Formats: sequence, structure tokens, C-alpha cells
Amino acid sequence: MIYFLSDYSQGAHPKVMEALERTNMEHSNGYGLDEHCEKAMEIIKNIIGIDNCEVYMMIGGTPCNVTIISASLRPYESVVALRTGHIYFHETGAIEATGHRVVALEGENGKMTPELIDKAREEYEDEHTPLPKMVYISQPTECGSIYSKAELAAIRKKCIENDMYLYVDGARLGAALTAEDNDLSIRELARLCDAFYIGGTKNGALFGEALVICNNKMNDHFRFMMKRQCNLLAKGRLIGVQFEALLDGGENSIYFEMAEHANRMCKIIRDELKRLGIDFYSSSQTNQLFPILPVKVVDELEKEFCFYRWAKEKDGMIPIRLVTGWGTEQKDVEALIKAIKQNYQR
Amino acid sequence: MIYFLSDYSQGAHPKVMEALERTNMEHSNGYGLDEHCEKAMEIIKNIIGIDNCEVYMMIGGTPCNVTIISASLRPYESVVALRTGHIYFHETGAIEATGHRVVALEGENGKMTPELIDKAREEYEDEHTPLPKMVYISQPTECGSIYSKAELAAIRKKCIENDMYLYVDGARLGAALTAEDNDLSIRELARLCDAFYIGGTKNGALFGEALVICNNKMNDHFRFMMKRQCNLLAKGRLIGVQFEALLDGGENSIYFEMAEHANRMCKIIRDELKRLGIDFYSSSQTNQLFPILPVKVVDELEKEFCFYRWAKEKDGMIPIRLVTGWGTEQKDVEALIKAIKQNYQR
Amino acid sequence: MIYFLSDYSQGAHPKVMEALERTNMEHSNGYGLDEHCEKAMEIIKNIIGIDNCEVYMMIGGTPCNVTIISASLRPYESVVALRTGHIYFHETGAIEATGHRVVALEGENGKMTPELIDKAREEYEDEHTPLPKMVYISQPTECGSIYSKAELAAIRKKCIENDMYLYVDGARLGAALTAEDNDLSIRELARLCDAFYIGGTKNGALFGEALVICNNKMNDHFRFMMKRQCNLLAKGRLIGVQFEALLDGGENSIYFEMAEHANRMCKIIRDELKRLGIDFYSSSQTNQLFPILPVKVVDELEKEFCFYRWAKEKDGMIPIRLVTGWGTEQKDVEALIKAIKQNYQR
Amino acid sequence: MIYFLSDYSQGAHPKVMEALERTNMEHSNGYGLDEHCEKAMEIIKNIIGIDNCEVYMMIGGTPCNVTIISASLRPYESVVALRTGHIYFHETGAIEATGHRVVALEGENGKMTPELIDKAREEYEDEHTPLPKMVYISQPTECGSIYSKAELAAIRKKCIENDMYLYVDGARLGAALTAEDNDLSIRELARLCDAFYIGGTKNGALFGEALVICNNKMNDHFRFMMKRQCNLLAKGRLIGVQFEALLDGGENSIYFEMAEHANRMCKIIRDELKRLGIDFYSSSQTNQLFPILPVKVVDELEKEFCFYRWAKEKDGMIPIRLVTGWGTEQKDVEALIKAIKQNYQR
Repeated sequence: MIYFLSDYSQGAHPKVMEALERTNMEHSNGYGLDEHCEKAMEIIKNIIGIDNCEVYMMIGGTPCNVTIISASLRPYESVVALRTGHIYFHETGAIEATGHRVVALEGENGKMTPELIDKAREEYEDEHTPLPKMVYISQPTECGSIYSKAELAAIRKKCIENDMYLYVDGARLGAALTAEDNDLSIRELARLCDAFYIGGTKNGALFGEALVICNNKMNDHFRFMMKRQCNLLAKGRLIGVQFEALLDGGENSIYFEMAEHANRMCKIIRDELKRLGIDFYSSSQTNQLFPILPVKVVDELEKEFCFYRWAKEKDGMIPIRLVTGWGTEQKDVEALIKAIKQNYQR
Repeated sequence: MIYFLSDYSQGAHPKVMEALERTNMEHSNGYGLDEHCEKAMEIIKNIIGIDNCEVYMMIGGTPCNVTIISASLRPYESVVALRTGHIYFHETGAIEATGHRVVALEGENGKMTPELIDKAREEYEDEHTPLPKMVYISQPTECGSIYSKAELAAIRKKCIENDMYLYVDGARLGAALTAEDNDLSIRELARLCDAFYIGGTKNGALFGEALVICNNKMNDHFRFMMKRQCNLLAKGRLIGVQFEALLDGGENSIYFEMAEHANRMCKIIRDELKRLGIDFYSSSQTNQLFPILPVKVVDELEKEFCFYRWAKEKDGMIPIRLVTGWGTEQKDVEALIKAIKQNYQR
Repeated sequence: MIYFLSDYSQGAHPKVMEALERTNMEHSNGYGLDEHCEKAMEIIKNIIGIDNCEVYMMIGGTPCNVTIISASLRPYESVVALRTGHIYFHETGAIEATGHRVVALEGENGKMTPELIDKAREEYEDEHTPLPKMVYISQPTECGSIYSKAELAAIRKKCIENDMYLYVDGARLGAALTAEDNDLSIRELARLCDAFYIGGTKNGALFGEALVICNNKMNDHFRFMMKRQCNLLAKGRLIGVQFEALLDGGENSIYFEMAEHANRMCKIIRDELKRLGIDFYSSSQTNQLFPILPVKVVDELEKEFCFYRWAKEKDGMIPIRLVTGWGTEQKDVEALIKAIKQNYQR
Repeated sequence: MIYFLSDYSQGAHPKVMEALERTNMEHSNGYGLDEHCEKAMEIIKNIIGIDNCEVYMMIGGTPCNVTIISASLRPYESVVALRTGHIYFHETGAIEATGHRVVALEGENGKMTPELIDKAREEYEDEHTPLPKMVYISQPTECGSIYSKAELAAIRKKCIENDMYLYVDGARLGAALTAEDNDLSIRELARLCDAFYIGGTKNGALFGEALVICNNKMNDHFRFMMKRQCNLLAKGRLIGVQFEALLDGGENSIYFEMAEHANRMCKIIRDELKRLGIDFYSSSQTNQLFPILPVKVVDELEKEFCFYRWAKEKDGMIPIRLVTGWGTEQKDVEALIKAIKQNYQR
């Protein structure tokens, strides 16, 4: 079987494993209060060029989302997202579990816009309605698309006008930063939002995400919230060690190298499918691809390849999701293309 | 000023006041465990013709909604409603405060349909998504429309197919039951849902709603949930006394008489506005009306009448909400019609 | 049957009923935004002699407690109370339902002390422990005892030292203010805490409490929290009207008159029982009394009188609770004393 | 510096690291639905000799506690624990965050008893009080003591009598199972409770605990609760791989070997301190030790050794906590003993 199932189906980059091995018998303080976490935080502050912020070593993406949202909002405040946003469609109501509404909007290609924020604000009247206080977006989006610098700046502007926080879920941030079409650096991103995270799980870590909170109002007693929401790892060191290894060398680190590789593998497939005239369910610019294929072709492909059927069949056609990762090899990509060609053109 | 602001802007029907006065110095057990509550429950069981159910004397509508939803759902389960549904648009996230998502759907004229339930179910996949377990509707809807017996039966069927509860918010239930177009008796309603409430606040009580739970699974430890969610009144007797007075005589009681009056007053206005060729924001069959009027006319009307502007102005036109109640007098209605005619036709 | 069951087993003072009757057909804005609530708030501000505060018309005591606690605390903060405190022992976990711990301490005679606050603070270490942020007490306590001015000042001092809020549950505040031993005026009380409420339910209202928040940090968006926690009454006017009637005349109002009467009725019983050498379960200074009587005497008394058995039987003796209210008549008190004497001395 | 700080200050047993390395490039399904988790579950079912149960691969101890408690209790139900219990004293209110009270009791030497459960039940009356539904204990306790088979059976009996669940936190379960005094096998433990977990973090894993739920009522939709409460790891495989390595060989596995080693190292210290006539803050039978030492001695020891001061100084004496782990070497233990002797006897 060849896997295009997800970018978290394999383990960690060898350099990450090597770092975990090397530091295994060190003694350290628990709960992220150790030298490796300290060092990883420093590296991240350097990369984003902001010193007056806090970085937290988090266990996973949902933990990041739940902790920052429940820590930042007062009980009657809500967070605005797209229906395709991870906090709405794939976290089993973990945000609502903390007492906050996720206002879910229909968007195009996974993207939030200032107009959609206006629409969410229209639901707000007075003490009878929740107060929308945060905008949640992902870079790249769940559809694989990315926000341009101008698009993000427009969203940020709208947030400021409405006294709302802007939080960016960066589960696949590497893929966005290294996308061919990208014009938004991580330094710019950090300045255009209140908080974001640098995803490790989906880009070569065993697990772990680095949450960066630039708006210091949101840093108040944040570690209390981490513990309360089950997101304070006893051996917190593990996440620090991994991010040290991932980001060592800054923009020349394996973090960027791996993400760029995944994007490049995906682009080979995308270009080939476009050449075949295949349509896409959504327009991705990163390491995910959503081609719409004849069910019969999909049935055939599944004998050799592993991937998700992404939506319901319609008129004999079905969208699938193909994801490339840091471990995807060129020969796998070529095998896939060959198989699609064979089956598609019959 | 003449009021068409709401059906809860005045006090209680004189007979309700008289009952409160008459019983004022009685001693009784607290928290709804008294003879008046007992008696009111009996009357309601007789009216709906079901004995194997429980009736609870609740403080208000939001308390009913919050208590039944949080008592019935497991933590990962959600409730499906329209964006116009009261639990979504007018309760400041009180449902989410108990940890449950309200799945909000766009509907027409305030009405849930089997197709919309299907749409909500499509968001459900597996342990990564909340499980939609309850459908919330209002009879009449927030737009003033009513479900026909066939419409309700179709929703019920869809709920049963999907193992979902059906809960009916009856804040204005009297208005639905006495609407000209209504073909759904309270006995039929009680059999077509798992739980519903008979609204008092908006139909002649000082306050209070009678929540009827027909599905006994939902009755388990319900009084614990009432207390936990702030909905157990010390002098619970007060609600029992009011419902005794409201429902004494069953379908010939002042409850039905008041609702029928409010509908009749509204119909006079509706018929006249239709005659004038005025459009409506939504199509109401009960005691609310949403005419779209020129802003200039509205400006004039506001000098003499009290009502809500219901949505944003557009091209010089704006929808307003007119509500009639048990206390609305025919002369008020006539004054309103006269004023609209004068201003509209200029 | 003669009732010493509770001070909320009867209805409202005739003047309250009369006010409700008189205003019944007025039209008013909903949700406490009407002239009667406005007027009641003014009266209360005058009584306490503080203008820079907010007053909210609340439905009941548990609603007051839940709303102020959940509005004031951040998610990881806790509230400190006695095990006998109402929020711990009689609200079905309604505080915990909003995500906050109630730190429960063993105290004597229902009273919080600075030393107990220290003890609660000792459980606090760092981000692994909840942060105690509020002290909850009742005046009078659940045991009927009252805090002296010096005692309250000492608690307040300890709160300030630890950056904690002090909130006083005044469900029976009238009884404390009019107690023979009381040296703490309502003006002083208001200055010695961050928030407190003036209880209506247990002193001659149908229902309703007036919550006074003197610390303006705690007033931020409070009405949003009222709605979210089910405590915004549609016909909010009802509570305003009642407090207007209750407090009209300030310290000469029926509010103080009723409380003083209840205390006086209780004192007659207390003095007589002391003369009989009867012991008490706790030492009450207000309108509750907890005599420990032989079970056989209690069995006899129950044939004629209604009251609670308060704790478990031990060695043939059992504590009962006797409560007098504004409606308790002198002849009832005399009948009770006579019956106790007859049974006790046999 | 020599560390006696905690049993989670170092990394993982070399065999665990080797297994992670070996499986690193395998592709697998996410979220614990892979072959390694499957295999680990089988091993555990064999060890406990129960097939009709479920095993879940959890991220940490607090996640286990929060998920099982919030999944098992209805909203008005509470969990009973000691004040020294982890869920009460060291989880920042994470249980209360899910809406449930932790009833906190004073116990001796960290142990729950049937009498204490009775005491907690006494707080329960009716719908005005939370319903205690679960007993939470740790084996070993936070004080290092262990429950004998007879003690656990007595607790279990009391739980059954009161229709309560019994849940055992096994963060250091290995230490209990291999303690010299232990008479309770893991097979017996599994039959004497409804659920328990086998701790990995504190016994040679990088992270991860295996939660075993024997009472199938508690297994309903449990994975939904894992996701909702932030406890579903994307690369769930990691926990499975670790438990495969830890438990391979059953009672002869490195899991038992490591725990036995830690206990043995601790016993050497304990025996020596006893010989010196040193008193203990609590009586531990496992790998934690709480000697009370002169502050001056502690000051000296801290120059060379790392450990916690455990409580406040009193009369020049202070309790410290010494913890041994799988990585503690005999020479470290000898160095510690030598240093204590030198300083203590001066």
C-alpha cells in the first residue's frame, strides 16, 4: 500500500528522533519549564522577530485551539469560523465544551473574508446575543488554499475595527509558508494576528505545536488554562526538544525543508491531474489535493493506494483527498500518477 | 403611546391576579412540590390526554430550553435549530454555556424541514464531530408561521429515523393552537414530540411555562437539573396557581380565549395591510406581523406607537414587528390602521 | 397545621400584592429596563448611600450566586465558602456547572474567618491548583448567626490582602439588619464587600432579589451573564415593582418591619426554650432556631406543627429547624411554646 | 546535581525508544486506530485476564481523569476524593471545568475508607444537592501508601451499596504492584473497580497511560469524549508502540522490572533513614519518601541533590519529597544516604 492518507501517518524526521534519543536520559523540570523549551522559545522569537510575546509548547492542534479560545474569551463571547474550520467541523464540540459558541459561516474555498465577519457581527445585538470576539482562521485553510498578505491584512483590519481577536491555526503552517504562491512571511503573519501556532504534528514532529501569543492580554495566567484544559505535558521537554530540532537554522531548518518537499510532491500530482483535465473539489495551493474522480477509478486506486473519500458520490463522480508529507517519496508520486492515468483514460 | 411591542409588555390576566391574591397567605411546600402545581399538572395531563408523562413548572422560556437540552443530551451531542430559532439567536449562548453545540441552519419562514435535518446530519461523521441528537423547533416559529400536522409529522419521522429527540418551544403555543390555519391540536402535538412547553409569559401569566416531557428517558432526575440550572423557584406554587387559573376549563379556558383574541386583533391589521399592498418580511399566521414599510412612514408611526424595527433599512424600506397580546384592544388596532393608511398613502 | 417550615412558604406582603395589582396593565420594556426597576435601583442606592454602583433585579438567590460568581471569576479561579454555605450544600453543584470550584471549609456556627481563608489559600500553589479569588459568605449565615462589623471588617481585610473579592449572600439580609445583636448597618455592609444582595423571596416578596455590585470591575457586561445564566426575566418589571413596595420609606419600610417582626417572633420561642434548658444545634441570632429535642417530643409536635428535622437522630435526640416569617402570628408562637412545654416536661 | 525530583524527569526506557525508532517510518491510521494500539490493548487484556472491557491509549493522567469522569457522570453528579487526591489538589479545577463537583474529604495517609464515603453521602439529600456517583482513589496514593486487597474490597462494597462507580488512578500503578507489602494483583484490581489506568509517564514511557474500562456502561461513545476533552492524539500509534514495549512479557516485562527497581532504590533510603530515627510526613510503601529533616540539613542537601520541599517549615523542621525512578542508580542513592548521614549527625 502507498499512503496519501495524511501528513501525520508517519513518525518524526530522523533529526527529531535523534534529538529525542540524545536527550533521553537528561533530568529536567516538568511541564515545559526546562532548558529545551526555553531554547525552542528563543528560536521561535528570533524567527518571527518579536521578543515581547510568549510561546507555549502544546500537545496538539485541538489543545491549542481549545486553550487559547477558552483563555481569551469571557463566557458570553463567541468565536467566528467557517463551517469548514477545524474548530467547527472536526473537534467534537470541544470549543462549545468550554461554554463558547462557534459562529459557523459558509465560505468559499475555505476562506474567511471581511464580509463574512460583518455577517457574523449582524447576529449580535445586545445582551440577548453572544458577542463575537474572536476570528478563527487556518493558514493554509482546511481546503489547502492560502491567504495572501493583502487578504490577511483586510481580515485583521476588520477585526481591529470590531475589537476582535484574530487567531490563526497553523497546523500546516509550513506548507503555507513554502507554497509557491505565498507572499506572506512568518514575520508578517505574526504581526497580522494576535496569536497563531506553528504546527509540528503535521510537519515532521512526533507530536506538538508551538503556540505564539503576541497580544499580551491573552497571556494572562495562560499556563493555568493549559493545565485546566488538559494541555500541560508532564515531560514538556519533549516538545521543546522537537522544536529545537525542527527549527534549528531558522528559515533553512528542516521544518521549512520538509514542508517545501511535501508541497513539491503535491504539485507534481496537481500539474499532472490538471493536464488530464480533472476537476477539483476545492482549489488547493499546498500539500493537499481534492480531485474529483469517477467512482470506478477510485475503486481501482484503492487497491494500491490509501487516501480518504472526501464527500458523497454524485453522478458517478467522487472527490478524494490526497495528502503528501515530508516522508512522501517521488516514486510514490509517480506510481500514483501512472495509476490514475491508466484508470482514468480507459 | 400605544404598544405593539411584545406580548409580554403587560402583566397578567385579571383571573390570574385574582388567583394569586386568593392563595397569597396559604402555606405551601417550596420548589413546586405543592398542591397547586399538582393540580396544574393534572389539568395539563387531561388537556393533552396523556397520563404517563411529567409536567414541570418552569420560570421562563430560556430556562425551559436550557434545562431540557442539558438534561437530555450527553456532552458530545448537539441540538439542531434554525438560525432564527430562539436558542440560537436570542439566548446569549445559554445552550453552549452547558457545553452543547447549537447547529444553526438557514431555513425559510422560520421552519425546520426533514431536508434541513438531513443537512445537519451530514456534518456528523464519527468521534471527530458532535452527534446531532435533538431537533429544536418553535410552534409558532419566531417568524409567526405555524407547522401543519403533516409538516410536524414529517419532522418527527425524520427524528425517529435518526434516533433524535424532537423538542417544541411553545413560548407562544396558544397563538398557534388558535390560529385560523391551524390543523394541529395540542393532543396531536404532544404525541408528535418528545417534549414541549406551554408558554405562560407571552399569554397572560406574570411569568412561567409548563414543560411537558412525554419521553420518560428525559425525565430522569430532571428536578436535579432544574436546580443546577437555576430554574427551581422557591415559591414554585406561584406558577402552579397561574396555570390552574389559565387552563381552568381546558380548551374553553382563558388561555385559549386570550390567544384567540390576540390572533384576531393581528388578523385585522394583516388583512388591512394586505389590502394596501404592503409586503411582509416573513409570512406570519399568528399574533406577530412583519410588514415592510417606508422608513418615513415608520418614523411617523413611532410618534404614536411602540414597536421594534426588525431588520436593517434597505432602499428606504424597513421591516417592523407588530405584536398583539391578550391586552390589545380593538381601538388600538383601529388607531394603528388609520395611522398607517394616512402615512402610507401620502 | 401551624407552619414553622420556612420564611418562603407564604406569598407576598399585601402592599406588594397591591403594587403588582396596581401596575398590572401598564406597558413596559422587558428584561428589567423599565421605570419600576429604575426606581427600585434608585431607592436602593439611596439606602446604601452609594451612587457609583449597579443594582440588578434578579429572580432568586441561586441565580444571584451563579451569575455573579461566573461573571467575576476567570475559568481557573475558585470561590471559597463553608461546607454549610448555600452554594456548597444546597445548589446541586450550580456553581461547578459554570466551571468553578467551590472550596469547602469546615467552620463553626456557619461563620467564615480570616484563618479559614488562609487555610483555603494554602491549597493554592501555582498553575497546578485553582486560584481562590472570591470569598462567599451569607449574612445572616445558614445557621442564623450574624457577622459583627468587626468580624466582617477582618474578613474584608484578609480578602484585600489576597486580592480576593468578597461577596455576601443576603437571602435573609433583613433578619440580620434587624437582629437585636446587630451592629452592622446596610451602609457599612455595602462598603465592606464587593457585592451583596438584598433578599426578597424570604422577606415578603413573591420572588426576587436585588443584587448590588459595588466593585465596578464586576459590572462589566453583567446583563449578558444574566441572560446566559437564565436569570433575565421577560417581565423584569415585576421585581422592580416589588422592591419599590418593599423598600418604600427606606429603613422605615415594610422590608425592615417584616424582618423585625420575624426576629421578634423567633426570640419569644428562643427565650422560652432557653428557659427550659433546651440545647441548640447552632447559635442563631435571627429568625431561625435549631433546638435539639427528644425524638418523642418531635413526633408529638409534628401532629400539629410543620418544620424540618435538621440532622440525624443521636441518642434519642434530634435537632429541628423552626423558622418564623413576616406572616408568623403571635398566637402560632404561643401554641408552639405551649406544645413544647407540655411534651418536654412530661 | 543528582535528581530525586520526580519519576518523570527523565525520558523513556531504551527499549521504548528503540521501539519508537523502529516503527518511525511505518504508515498508520491516526487517533489510536492502528495495529500497535490494537496489540497493546490485547497485551493488557491478557495481563488483567478480562476480555470484555475496553482499553484506551491516553496522553496523560489528568486527561484520563477528566475524560472518564466527564464521560461517566450526569451533569448533577459528583465525584468523591480526598483533599490529597490528584483531581482535587493538582489539576487546576480540570474536573470542575467539566461541570462536576469534586467532594473533597480529609483522610489519613492519603487513603479513602468506607466511612469517608459515608460522610460524603451525608451531604446528599435530594434535588438540592449533587449526587455523589463516583469514588476516585489512587493506587498507590499521593502519599505513597497502598491499598491492601481487603481495603480495596471494602471500598468497592461500599460503592456497590451506594450505586457508585469506583475509579482507580494508576499514575504509579507499577510501584504499587511491585511494592514489598502489596497483596493486590492487577487481575484483582481490575475486578475490584469499574475503571483504572496503567500509568506510563511515571514508569518509563515518554508519555501515555492505558485506561482500562471494565464497566461497559462507561464505554459508551468514549472516543467522542476523548476528542471533546482534547485527549485524542493524532499519532495515537505512539502510545500503543510504547505500551507494547513496556508490557511485552506481561508480569516479566520491563514495566514491572522498572517499578520494582524504583521501589528497591527507595527502600534502601527508607531503611537507612529509619535507622537514623528520622520521622516521615506520611507513611510510604512505594517509590516516594517524605522524611522530615532539619531545615539546615535540607539547605545542605540542596547543594548536591534536587528534590521538592513538600510542606511548610515548622519548628526548624521541614518535610521533603524524595522520588526514585527507573533511571535512579544505586550510586545516587548511596551518595544521598552519605550526605544525609554527614549532615544529620553533625
